[in-house]
Amino acid sequence: MINRKEKEVQTVLEVVIAEPDPPEEADEEDNYKEYKMGEDKNFQRADIGLIGLAVMGENLALNIEKNGFCVAVYNRTTQKVDNFLQSRGINKNFIGTKTVEELCSVLAKPRKLIIMVKAGNPIDQFIDQVLPCLDEGDILIDGGNSHYLDTIRRTKYVNEKGILFVGTGISGGEEGALNGPSIMPGGNEDAWSVVKPVLQSIAAKVDGDVPCCEWVGNDGAGHYVKMVHNGIEYSDMQLICEAYQLLKSGLNLSPGEIHEIFKSWNSGPLNSYLIEITSEILDHTDEKTGEATIDLILDVAGQKGTGKWTGISGLELGVPIPQIVQAVFTRCLSALKSERVYASAVLSGSNQKISDQSDKFINKLHNALYASKICSYAQGFQLLKFAAEEFDWDLNYGDIALLWRGGCIIRAGFLKNIKEAFDSKSDLTNLLLDPYFAKIMIDTQDDLRYIAKQAIDCGIPLPSMTSALNYYDAYRCARLPANLLQAQRDYFGAHTYERIDKERGEFFHTNWTGQGGETASSSYNV
Amino acid sequence: MINRKEKEVQTVLEVVIAEPDPPEEADEEDNYKEYKMGEDKNFQRADIGLIGLAVMGENLALNIEKNGFCVAVYNRTTQKVDNFLQSRGINKNFIGTKTVEELCSVLAKPRKLIIMVKAGNPIDQFIDQVLPCLDEGDILIDGGNSHYLDTIRRTKYVNEKGILFVGTGISGGEEGALNGPSIMPGGNEDAWSVVKPVLQSIAAKVDGDVPCCEWVGNDGAGHYVKMVHNGIEYSDMQLICEAYQLLKSGLNLSPGEIHEIFKSWNSGPLNSYLIEITSEILDHTDEKTGEATIDLILDVAGQKGTGKWTGISGLELGVPIPQIVQAVFTRCLSALKSERVYASAVLSGSNQKISDQSDKFINKLHNALYASKICSYAQGFQLLKFAAEEFDWDLNYGDIALLWRGGCIIRAGFLKNIKEAFDSKSDLTNLLLDPYFAKIMIDTQDDLRYIAKQAIDCGIPLPSMTSALNYYDAYRCARLPANLLQAQRDYFGAHTYERIDKERGEFFHTNWTGQGGETASSSYNV
Repeated sequence: MINRKEKEVQTVLEVVIAEPDPPEEADEEDNYKEYKMGEDKNFQRADIGLIGLAVMGENLALNIEKNGFCVAVYNRTTQKVDNFLQSRGINKNFIGTKTVEELCSVLAKPRKLIIMVKAGNPIDQFIDQVLPCLDEGDILIDGGNSHYLDTIRRTKYVNEKGILFVGTGISGGEEGALNGPSIMPGGNEDAWSVVKPVLQSIAAKVDGDVPCCEWVGNDGAGHYVKMVHNGIEYSDMQLICEAYQLLKSGLNLSPGEIHEIFKSWNSGPLNSYLIEITSEILDHTDEKTGEATIDLILDVAGQKGTGKWTGISGLELGVPIPQIVQAVFTRCLSALKSERVYASAVLSGSNQKISDQSDKFINKLHNALYASKICSYAQGFQLLKFAAEEFDWDLNYGDIALLWRGGCIIRAGFLKNIKEAFDSKSDLTNLLLDPYFAKIMIDTQDDLRYIAKQAIDCGIPLPSMTSALNYYDAYRCARLPANLLQAQRDYFGAHTYERIDKERGEFFHTNWTGQGGETASSSYNV
Repeated sequence: MINRKEKEVQTVLEVVIAEPDPPEEADEEDNYKEYKMGEDKNFQRADIGLIGLAVMGENLALNIEKNGFCVAVYNRTTQKVDNFLQSRGINKNFIGTKTVEELCSVLAKPRKLIIMVKAGNPIDQFIDQVLPCLDEGDILIDGGNSHYLDTIRRTKYVNEKGILFVGTGISGGEEGALNGPSIMPGGNEDAWSVVKPVLQSIAAKVDGDVPCCEWVGNDGAGHYVKMVHNGIEYSDMQLICEAYQLLKSGLNLSPGEIHEIFKSWNSGPLNSYLIEITSEILDHTDEKTGEATIDLILDVAGQKGTGKWTGISGLELGVPIPQIVQAVFTRCLSALKSERVYASAVLSGSNQKISDQSDKFINKLHNALYASKICSYAQGFQLLKFAAEEFDWDLNYGDIALLWRGGCIIRAGFLKNIKEAFDSKSDLTNLLLDPYFAKIMIDTQDDLRYIAKQAIDCGIPLPSMTSALNYYDAYRCARLPANLLQAQRDYFGAHTYERIDKERGEFFHTNWTGQGGETASSSYNV
């Protein structure tokens, strides 16, 4: 790995600028490349290539360069390359390239190429475009928000051509990409030793120098973990919104007052990026109107799909993640704005305010939020466990908690405690069963009950917090009413049931009506 | 259409029995068929063919025959054909066939073939097997629980070969199949006039003679509606289970006492098949032990996948159906039995009992169940509306409510009111906005709040009822806290937001920190 500190820095940009403009004709481009490569025997080979100069791509390129690597950049709309090299990339260790062939020709071998293009077909198209320019052992890294099933497919496809594939989740938004994101790589483990120095150097660091970047697992594991990160992010955001709503509509507090509450929460166990930015958002004043900006924003949530993917995976694997799905559906419901406005005039309900305005109430809300957050992470980690089994990934849950400690959107103080929980018991079935978190849940559940009841009295929806409470009460319920459900299924569909006085795996059918057949259902699904 | 009453009944079974056994060798089967067809010029052509003699297939065949049609039956394991004809099918108007070719040779044209085999590949395999034996205009009817996307694909595929395809949902379990199921056909509308007499004659009837069978829509519409039926069924069952749990664990009532409550509820607005069978189940005594059977059944719920499909469709279409998904996830959670038993000893919470044992409490629970049920149907019908838009189906929601009034698992008195709601306003946005249901919600929502709070105090999970209450409160909330969520997304991902003081469709980005770029996010999804 060539490091800036270990070699003479060469301002490649100037080299590029000093060269004649490449001829426009495609059939002459090869000559141009030959010329460039042949003319200057000391022509610097880039450490890594990056494709796609949208905001995230640009920032990631700048981050890599800043850490001492020479980065060759390419963008389909080549004007973007010029723009970048003449603005944010100026006087830095970048090589601008105008074709995929040129990009590949300037990379040190084995080539490492980070793809930062829109997830979906564009990635497949780029892969097919770049494959002919690669040699065995070269590495393609997809740093976008790809679906894990695509990554599983691509790893196999690219591998069959002798190329290594890495699908990596990258979280932290624009700012993280520039200054240190959380990086969750999966794919061909053979690639890890080669890409590790670059990825770990640009990643967020916690506890001084521990990078939030570790190998996650085979094929789609990295993108899966990133997807679950986003699912948890949806849930975290929804929970914060619910606390805000209760403070605003239940207690009639102003944005400034709520800002102070979130600010104080950020110095306690809820300390996290999302609580911090919530506090800052609530403190922001709209320049034109002088009003609190938050009050001017339309209450219609957008979404890009990763929460949805998480929910679908939970359904497919049969893992209860109700809180994460509830967060997705609450975004969907927010989008029905005109219906809601109409319904608000038609459908009455409780509209009382919260009488208890004491600090005690605020503290109970804090604890309700904390307890709900723990339930949400418990669901996310349990989903990972089921996925690991399904897809044959050897996941290290303590490492995953570490990856999320810094750089990413859900970074939070308490992820250190989650890491400790899984470090001390790597096969922990559910986070709620870890002694540290069990104690917090036991200590806070009464406050969660109190807050849920207050909201019910006020007619304020707290879908995620009440979902968390129900998850807690159902998870710790030794006998759920599913016995009745099984009886119903056996009654109308002869689906059979197990008995508490018999071994598991033995199935029984009752002729409930005394009429009809004794035949149990076979292939037909009602 | 040949009707039993319009022709001399010919006991075809006797003809078949009188014939020599078919030769075992496959290459002689053609001769056998020729012999049969040629020998007896009066050989009766069957009105319809049925493939797959599992419980549902058998019962449906018996139902069709009972309604005056001659049914040719076929099963891959041909022994089943013999067994059927010598047992339940004896002395009835059936023709047993041992090969697909034979089956097709005995059908009147245009041929009508109902496929009752396991959903998935077996159906595709059968289609490919039967296609060469069919002529243009013949009709294949898939009566299994196929996924609507498969039905969309198969309609197109079969059509390209000149054959008409009908994918029909059939609900009612074994008993319904035999005595009158709810039938939800979709596919090629050209087939409707041909299959209508058979399907409507075997369907459940309401109001005397109104069949619960109407054309639903193009390609996958019938199976989609059946899928949503099942999603609602999951939700209905879960709600009943929650009421049972509260009566059992909160009030310490015996199965016999709970049986009486459900029995009385069945004569009111909750009147429905599921309430009825719940009452009967609770009254059932285990022969061997003398205990209530319900108390001996293991509380681990099974599922076959249609609830999951409904949830996935809701997520994909962005339609809030939290209650239906909650029902699926509660089944999943019930399956974690050993975890729950362990957790019950580790995770403490409220364990108090309900002090209010008055009839008033039972009545409030009744109303809570009713209100929750309405919310669940509102979600299901809204899902249908979004699906109709997505897949270009011209759905008649009043008709769909009619289809569900009889025969099927969710049949219930109040579906008549749902039909009336959509009949009087076919483009009704949400069932909650219909005056009749809005009034019920307004009248019952206080009881739902009361019950939810009681359960919270007792630590008894009511995930679906509280989900319903939150749906109600969120749906009638003119201003949800999604403004904060949009601000967060804009803060970390520059995803932009809309403003309440600007037109919809105009998007804004705030530089929240005063640092960093003003660039809004483009293609990269955080």
